[in-house]
Amino acid sequence: MLGSTHGTLTTDFRARVEACGETPRTAVHSTAAPAAGDTAELDVSGRPLHSDVPDLDRFFRPESVAVIGASDTEGRPNTGITRQLIAWAERVGARVHPVHPTRTSVFGLPCHASVAELPEQVDLAVLLVADPLPVIEELADTKVKFAVAFASGFAETGESGAAAQARLTAAVQRSGLRLLGPNTNLNAFESFREDLDGPAIALITQSGHQGRPVYTLQELGIRLSHWAPTGNEADLETADFISYFAERPEVGAIACYVEGLKDGRSFLLAADRAARNGVPVVAVKVGRTETGARMAASHTGKLTGADTVVDAAMRQFGVIRVDGLDELQDTAALLARARPPQAEGVVVYSISGGTGAHFSDLATEAGLTLPTLSEAKQAELHQWIPSYLNVANPVDNGGHPVGDWRGRKIIDAILADPSVGVLICPITGPFPPMSDKLAQDLVDAAEATDKLVCVIWGSPVGTEEAYRSTLLGSSRVATFRTFGNCITAVRAYLGHHRFTASYRSPFDEAPRTPSPSHRKAQALMRPGQQLSEHAAKQLLRAYGIRVPREQLVTSAAAAVRAAGLVGYPVVMKASGPQLAHKTELGLVKVGLTSASQIRDAYRELTDIARYENIPLDGILVCQMVERGVEMVVGVTRDPLFGPTVTVGLGGVLVEVLHDAAVRVPPFGEDQARTMLRELRGAALLDGVRGAPPADVDALVEVVLRVQRMALELGDDLSELDINPLMVLPRGQGAVALDALAICR
Amino acid sequence: MLGSTHGTLTTDFRARVEACGETPRTAVHSTAAPAAGDTAELDVSGRPLHSDVPDLDRFFRPESVAVIGASDTEGRPNTGITRQLIAWAERVGARVHPVHPTRTSVFGLPCHASVAELPEQVDLAVLLVADPLPVIEELADTKVKFAVAFASGFAETGESGAAAQARLTAAVQRSGLRLLGPNTNLNAFESFREDLDGPAIALITQSGHQGRPVYTLQELGIRLSHWAPTGNEADLETADFISYFAERPEVGAIACYVEGLKDGRSFLLAADRAARNGVPVVAVKVGRTETGARMAASHTGKLTGADTVVDAAMRQFGVIRVDGLDELQDTAALLARARPPQAEGVVVYSISGGTGAHFSDLATEAGLTLPTLSEAKQAELHQWIPSYLNVANPVDNGGHPVGDWRGRKIIDAILADPSVGVLICPITGPFPPMSDKLAQDLVDAAEATDKLVCVIWGSPVGTEEAYRSTLLGSSRVATFRTFGNCITAVRAYLGHHRFTASYRSPFDEAPRTPSPSHRKAQALMRPGQQLSEHAAKQLLRAYGIRVPREQLVTSAAAAVRAAGLVGYPVVMKASGPQLAHKTELGLVKVGLTSASQIRDAYRELTDIARYENIPLDGILVCQMVERGVEMVVGVTRDPLFGPTVTVGLGGVLVEVLHDAAVRVPPFGEDQARTMLRELRGAALLDGVRGAPPADVDALVEVVLRVQRMALELGDDLSELDINPLMVLPRGQGAVALDALAICR
Repeated sequence: MLGSTHGTLTTDFRARVEACGETPRTAVHSTAAPAAGDTAELDVSGRPLHSDVPDLDRFFRPESVAVIGASDTEGRPNTGITRQLIAWAERVGARVHPVHPTRTSVFGLPCHASVAELPEQVDLAVLLVADPLPVIEELADTKVKFAVAFASGFAETGESGAAAQARLTAAVQRSGLRLLGPNTNLNAFESFREDLDGPAIALITQSGHQGRPVYTLQELGIRLSHWAPTGNEADLETADFISYFAERPEVGAIACYVEGLKDGRSFLLAADRAARNGVPVVAVKVGRTETGARMAASHTGKLTGADTVVDAAMRQFGVIRVDGLDELQDTAALLARARPPQAEGVVVYSISGGTGAHFSDLATEAGLTLPTLSEAKQAELHQWIPSYLNVANPVDNGGHPVGDWRGRKIIDAILADPSVGVLICPITGPFPPMSDKLAQDLVDAAEATDKLVCVIWGSPVGTEEAYRSTLLGSSRVATFRTFGNCITAVRAYLGHHRFTASYRSPFDEAPRTPSPSHRKAQALMRPGQQLSEHAAKQLLRAYGIRVPREQLVTSAAAAVRAAGLVGYPVVMKASGPQLAHKTELGLVKVGLTSASQIRDAYRELTDIARYENIPLDGILVCQMVERGVEMVVGVTRDPLFGPTVTVGLGGVLVEVLHDAAVRVPPFGEDQARTMLRELRGAALLDGVRGAPPADVDALVEVVLRVQRMALELGDDLSELDINPLMVLPRGQGAVALDALAICR
Repeated sequence: MLGSTHGTLTTDFRARVEACGETPRTAVHSTAAPAAGDTAELDVSGRPLHSDVPDLDRFFRPESVAVIGASDTEGRPNTGITRQLIAWAERVGARVHPVHPTRTSVFGLPCHASVAELPEQVDLAVLLVADPLPVIEELADTKVKFAVAFASGFAETGESGAAAQARLTAAVQRSGLRLLGPNTNLNAFESFREDLDGPAIALITQSGHQGRPVYTLQELGIRLSHWAPTGNEADLETADFISYFAERPEVGAIACYVEGLKDGRSFLLAADRAARNGVPVVAVKVGRTETGARMAASHTGKLTGADTVVDAAMRQFGVIRVDGLDELQDTAALLARARPPQAEGVVVYSISGGTGAHFSDLATEAGLTLPTLSEAKQAELHQWIPSYLNVANPVDNGGHPVGDWRGRKIIDAILADPSVGVLICPITGPFPPMSDKLAQDLVDAAEATDKLVCVIWGSPVGTEEAYRSTLLGSSRVATFRTFGNCITAVRAYLGHHRFTASYRSPFDEAPRTPSPSHRKAQALMRPGQQLSEHAAKQLLRAYGIRVPREQLVTSAAAAVRAAGLVGYPVVMKASGPQLAHKTELGLVKVGLTSASQIRDAYRELTDIARYENIPLDGILVCQMVERGVEMVVGVTRDPLFGPTVTVGLGGVLVEVLHDAAVRVPPFGEDQARTMLRELRGAALLDGVRGAPPADVDALVEVVLRVQRMALELGDDLSELDINPLMVLPRGQGAVALDALAICR
């Protein structure tokens, strides 16, 4: 059983909310938008509990813009950029003030010799200069709100560039302005189609070229509202834009292309804000492999976190991660525009039984639910569809009913079914006599319903009228080109609404103040050292995690006495700092049942240690614990997200199969339970081969206590590994049989 | 150790090639094309060892065609079909003979009252009648070579339809003609672009609508040579067309859409022919999930095999399985047209570091090899690319060099590198000043090299000139629309050439005659029964698979004597037919070291059996085998492919993780080794936690002996399960500790 002196952490976790009176490190120009009822601003680890939303209105819609380094000399690179900036400023209604030391006018606009001579306080300064640092320093005095730096040669180029970027960041922080860049580009000053309405996609990219396909979606009738090309993120980062966009009423979805995250916590807080507001965030995050990660680092000069941690963090906060830019486009477009689902059921409707079978196969494999339509609904559909065709779902109309009045009736009848949230119609072959009418019926039906209607236009050509005019002309039909992308997007759509409907921010419940365990634990820490097994177990005890009865002894006689106290049979193990892999070294003896066995074991263990030259602080005589499921629970430090908590299957399984799940604190009990379900070997906890079900509640409690320890000890704890944690049958708790702790 | 009386099976397997003098069951009109040196035609299981290639020349290019049920009355469905057939016949140069009982002419052609009145022996009869059966019977007398039946209402509709189809099949077999259909369509009579050259795609589909996107590829400049819409496959099946296309010089790749396979062996033999000829087969096979499988069965009326078996069978014979029709198109088009690779290395070249990083990340994760370019090559590239950009691979040119003479130089320099087999250039954003020139340079460079040049045109619009004219206008550049499809196709391309380069047909080495083991094994079989553990182990011994020393006893005193003979410590187990899950029932006692323990165990086991009402044939006293890796090796019968051999990790792993690999016989030692590498827990065999490496050679030998047993016992053996097979440390063999065998 878990120790009774500690209460349960799940209660403790939510208990005390106190103001700490400190200001988080972020944002000078910012609108604080704390969550309701949240007055504390730092958690027990000293990290912020909510993000500030930078007010970027005047960045995207400035009233006045200074162009530093403006040019109108043909053939110079800055000339084209100046021209584009002037055109953009005209569209957004901003006054433009060129700045150049030697020019008096640029493109007919009066030019100023320096920023000090600007005629008004400008909202935005665009820096077309090789070295933005001195300009930033000058701008500090002018109270300009925002600057954009295009120059490259910073952190993306290596160490000296990173140092230059650090100086730039420091200058920005002193200045009071917010900077986009360096190493960014003109994408922030693109024009957007004004003739499209409905919810829009807001785009954030660390590489301009990579954002272009999403931007180009406008040519297919998908509305875009913003494009933030963040470049090297010396100041403004992806998280700032997510927070800002998540508060904008016109934004239906946020699409991100991310190479490296600047700060784990600020990303999570931004994702948390989007989740609270129900705004979907869809992201491509480079770094699936080491090669990719290396490239990403050299490109943006930022640290790429271990990918499994990034992946877990994104899932915890509902960020939808996709692999390809095509998936980014299709998923973001669907999530931006589709209304919330009225049901989870997906019906596949096709003019070909083969198409229906193929799509259903892939959709079911991807986890979508295809309900069997009721007998009554099937009878209704058979009014229009020949009786020998299958209409249970997928609905196969055999082709012919599409061509006449029946086509629309069938679609409406399917959409009227209460089990149906999504209708998907794959049209693999363009066959105008059928497909044109079918496309029009689908568009008409979609206009008349709140339910989601998806069409896959499978022709590889894509210049057909039914596709380009009929389907893309409708903002109510979601049109895809491949089965795969439709399935990915629909799964994300249903998953997003399921996630946000039950979302409770873990930041609201994160601990603000240390638990009573913290002081006990601090006394056990040995900076720079690996604790002995015995000391590491004391640390666990401090957090109410059960360990076996055990005694550390330094003589055979004491070992025999200890065995009497902990109770036969016993396990004996060598104990010492720097001691790992005891089993392989023969430094563990199990199932000892008599004093003579104990004396023999004592001699043998100390002999091996002497022979192997391993310093010991003694021999542990431990209670023998059997018949449970061996698990591993641990803490590792991620350079981006700080401490992370891992749970996995123990023994050979963790070594060979790496069957483990990871979470970034803070997370609640629900996530701890989800971790266990993610394990491929999760069924072991249910009991296999006649074994009783394991005490999953106790396991979850250990995970939460380990999280608490990780948060409270923070940087002091480099690594913790409970291996194995023996999870006993239900109701009997969990016992940490061995532990490794490394202090920093 | 494996028994020494049996030799090694791998030798045995290739030993005797004898003519059996029997004719395989396939094809009346056929050209026998046995593999060189292969005179035997059936393997030891009685199944054919090579496929006949039906001569379909006159099917695709008939000299004369009869249209049975022809019509020219406006508004009748057969009229449109007749018109289309006449047009098609004109294109292929065939004479058309309409047949109708009451018409004298159809579209100006003289019409005949019945097939008996046809003016010549026709190559092809197209049956536009509701019931093709009587017509097939009439056609039998006319020596027509081929018939096509469009009528539906056969196996796709259920039991009575299946019976009608069986009658049709029987009539076809009596007739001497070959039938396509029923339930097929006009897709066999489509027109193909004649202006395209180079290797073509041949298409086989069980559903017309599903083949349309591949057919439409012609509009993108990809050549198609044939389309075989097989429908219900009452006679001609997918395998027949694969065999035929694999022999056609104009066919570069075969693309298949398969819902259900008609016969496992004929499919494998066709795939084997394609593999021998180096012709890639790319297939979508419905049935990933049960839902999909159910739909597929109801659509084509054929049995869908368990998907993991289908998947394994395809991989064994090099069939490239893809999920989406878009992947089918892109992969088949690449494989049809690209020349064999000169190296496996892939270089990613981009105008954006972000794009290069993203693509490399996904490509590396998918298993492609991205070699680091040599220092010399990098220096060469830096002549044209600024020094701060990464050109190691991915090669980032930063954009600008693309616009001038440097663009082509860079591409040529990359292609000249001997480590490079494939150059991939992802162009995510259409930016005409750069992308148009880049596209043209890539096309020009591709024309001048045998190496593969791939481009991803990432714009979602796809109407851009650079895409539609420049890229699609070249048959030497492989153009994709998504990163994912490019990676899938390139992986398949490299994999296909690797596979065919080392392909040795397992049919050449499959056993033709029973081994000496077979007679011993037959004597042990008990039709309709599950053998006792003891009998099942005798079966294993018959095939030279080692089992522990053991004795079956029926008294405690005999048990003690037996223990003395097999040697202490021993294991005791209840033995009887219908006895499974002995451990859960407490019917296994391990580690018994004394006579008194044996007597106690004997009493306890017999007590439990009596209490649980389990009939025993005695108690097994077995040698105790320890310290090995527990595996499972078994045989199951697949309804489509017959006996299959499975190997997996034993114990809890197989129960919880289902970590197993399956193969369809015949397969050789190489595949047996590949099976082991496919296991997620394969590392266990290498030795973990200080355990020694396991005797993998002995494990492979057991797998091959089990295959031999499965082939020789054929239908008589329903199921075999060696669980666990204890694989001892290297050089010490493998021992079957328990076995279950069910006779049919």
